[in-house]
Amino acid sequence: MILIPKTGFPITAFGNDKKNKYMQALVYQNKRLIFKDDWPKPQPVAGEALVRVLMAGICNTDLEITRGYLNFAGVLGHEFVGVVEESSNPSLLSKRVVGEINCACGECSCCQVGLGRHCPQRKVLGIAGKDGAFAEYLTVPEQNLHLVADNVANQAAVFCEPLAAAWEILEQTPVTPQDDVLVLGDGKLGMLIAQVLKTTGCRLLAVGKHKEKLALFESWGIQTGLLTDLGMRLFDIVVDATGSPQGLRTAIEHTRPRGRIILKTTVAEKQPFSMAAVVINELTIIGSRCGLFPPALEALSGRKVSIESLISAIYPLAKGLEAFQKAMQPGVLKVLLQT
Amino acid sequence: MILIPKTGFPITAFGNDKKNKYMQALVYQNKRLIFKDDWPKPQPVAGEALVRVLMAGICNTDLEITRGYLNFAGVLGHEFVGVVEESSNPSLLSKRVVGEINCACGECSCCQVGLGRHCPQRKVLGIAGKDGAFAEYLTVPEQNLHLVADNVANQAAVFCEPLAAAWEILEQTPVTPQDDVLVLGDGKLGMLIAQVLKTTGCRLLAVGKHKEKLALFESWGIQTGLLTDLGMRLFDIVVDATGSPQGLRTAIEHTRPRGRIILKTTVAEKQPFSMAAVVINELTIIGSRCGLFPPALEALSGRKVSIESLISAIYPLAKGLEAFQKAMQPGVLKVLLQT
Repeated sequence: MILIPKTGFPITAFGNDKKNKYMQALVYQNKRLIFKDDWPKPQPVAGEALVRVLMAGICNTDLEITRGYLNFAGVLGHEFVGVVEESSNPSLLSKRVVGEINCACGECSCCQVGLGRHCPQRKVLGIAGKDGAFAEYLTVPEQNLHLVADNVANQAAVFCEPLAAAWEILEQTPVTPQDDVLVLGDGKLGMLIAQVLKTTGCRLLAVGKHKEKLALFESWGIQTGLLTDLGMRLFDIVVDATGSPQGLRTAIEHTRPRGRIILKTTVAEKQPFSMAAVVINELTIIGSRCGLFPPALEALSGRKVSIESLISAIYPLAKGLEAFQKAMQPGVLKVLLQT
Repeated sequence: MILIPKTGFPITAFGNDKKNKYMQALVYQNKRLIFKDDWPKPQPVAGEALVRVLMAGICNTDLEITRGYLNFAGVLGHEFVGVVEESSNPSLLSKRVVGEINCACGECSCCQVGLGRHCPQRKVLGIAGKDGAFAEYLTVPEQNLHLVADNVANQAAVFCEPLAAAWEILEQTPVTPQDDVLVLGDGKLGMLIAQVLKTTGCRLLAVGKHKEKLALFESWGIQTGLLTDLGMRLFDIVVDATGSPQGLRTAIEHTRPRGRIILKTTVAEKQPFSMAAVVINELTIIGSRCGLFPPALEALSGRKVSIESLISAIYPLAKGLEAFQKAMQPGVLKVLLQT
């Protein structure tokens, strides 16, 4: 892991008043990613907390947004750990927290069955309609916040959101020790997913294209292979975490009749595609996105997953543009921003 | 329904011996559909019965095969009712039967869990590796045959296969009176599926493009609408029975978050496609193909579904080429072949 020191980074020379009104932020605006040191500091509304960001993670979705995905404009970032500076809830004040990213209306039919993360009116931190965490501060609905146990370092806590997305699979479909499971994709999400699936005792194989990444899986006791070595092998469950539109096609080829595909890949790109094999083999494709934070926090606290080796570099927020460049390089895993 | 009379049809002037060796058949060969009156009569092998075909139905899959789908060559036809003329099983002899179309190996892991219709070594009547039912005779594994109750006419029994495919949905996923269900597609399969789903008491809407076809749904007490009137309405379950690659896209647009799509459409055609909404809304797509015959036979016998109005025309086998022309015309529903 490379730690980019703050040394040499110009301190913003604001007076106290200005300091209270403005902050540093990494903003996607007019189709460009820019670093601002005079972005308005957000004001929490009723039910919201003001969170001072300690650390935030750059996710592939952030990279996709800077390529035009989802048409978002504002402060990027949805993976973070921070400290609550303002809240009407005393049990949150001054506490270290992570936050679920979907800000739901609380009233619609989705919200009423506990699926606020599918609320059609929702805003999503740094993704849709609400500024995110690549800033000194962000506001978050208090109900989205979860306390972080003392034994979880910032560098681990910041993985809570993507780890919850990995855990979502187990909330959606049962995985048992009798299942042959294939994880496609040796990127960050594939690494988290494979570690989560390993906790079920299933017969697990992770495949990818990068031997040095697959070596990490092996270090966690997960069997690996190269995509090109799969042959005609079929699995009960195949997880597509490739981030490529080709991933689903590969998943379909390697799922046994009546088997399940967990689809994690979201890409804007459209590719010519036939679903005939899904019908003929009666496959089930389960789209899987954000997950609940408690199981992820518990896994981090209980050291059930290994996080450290996923961090490629830590940059100060003011070097966010460099951090994005780094995150886009092949072979780079998680790049973190420190505030 | 148009009944094309046999009058004027030239009787084949075979002697007795030749009559025993050859038969009439509708054959897809060298990329052409041809009528033969000297096709070799099939000989049952051990475990097979010889079935004299009484009536057979032309399915969209047959039409697709004549457009090159699945690369099949041989006698077409997989929807049939017939009489067993030869069998080592005395309980089948001279009985009226229908037959499941997948001829499985009986030994592989699929077969051992009762999923012979997914056996990777399977042949499929009139679709893959085995001659079908658009002929005077076909051979069928005895274990595939089911007796037809006396109160089920040939014209109803011949619908057993597509009706079983409709019933398959209920074998794969629960449908309850609390579910809002949308059936996309007002063709034959959509009609059978809607009738099957109606038996669950779910809140059902069938939509299509053809007012005259939708009127049939209404006559069965099923609420209908035009595709163009759907607006932004969302459903718990959406069945794609459109037969068009556009169908899945429409289904995705009208399925609520965490809802289910039942995919019945098999088309060879590939279209540019993004699955992002499946992930974002965590939809489940369930591919659905052939079903078990017993529930379909019971429904036919118990008059739970209306079949008569689905028959557009009945042709003698020798006019099979005309029958195919008819089946390809817009607005035409089921075309049957009588032997």
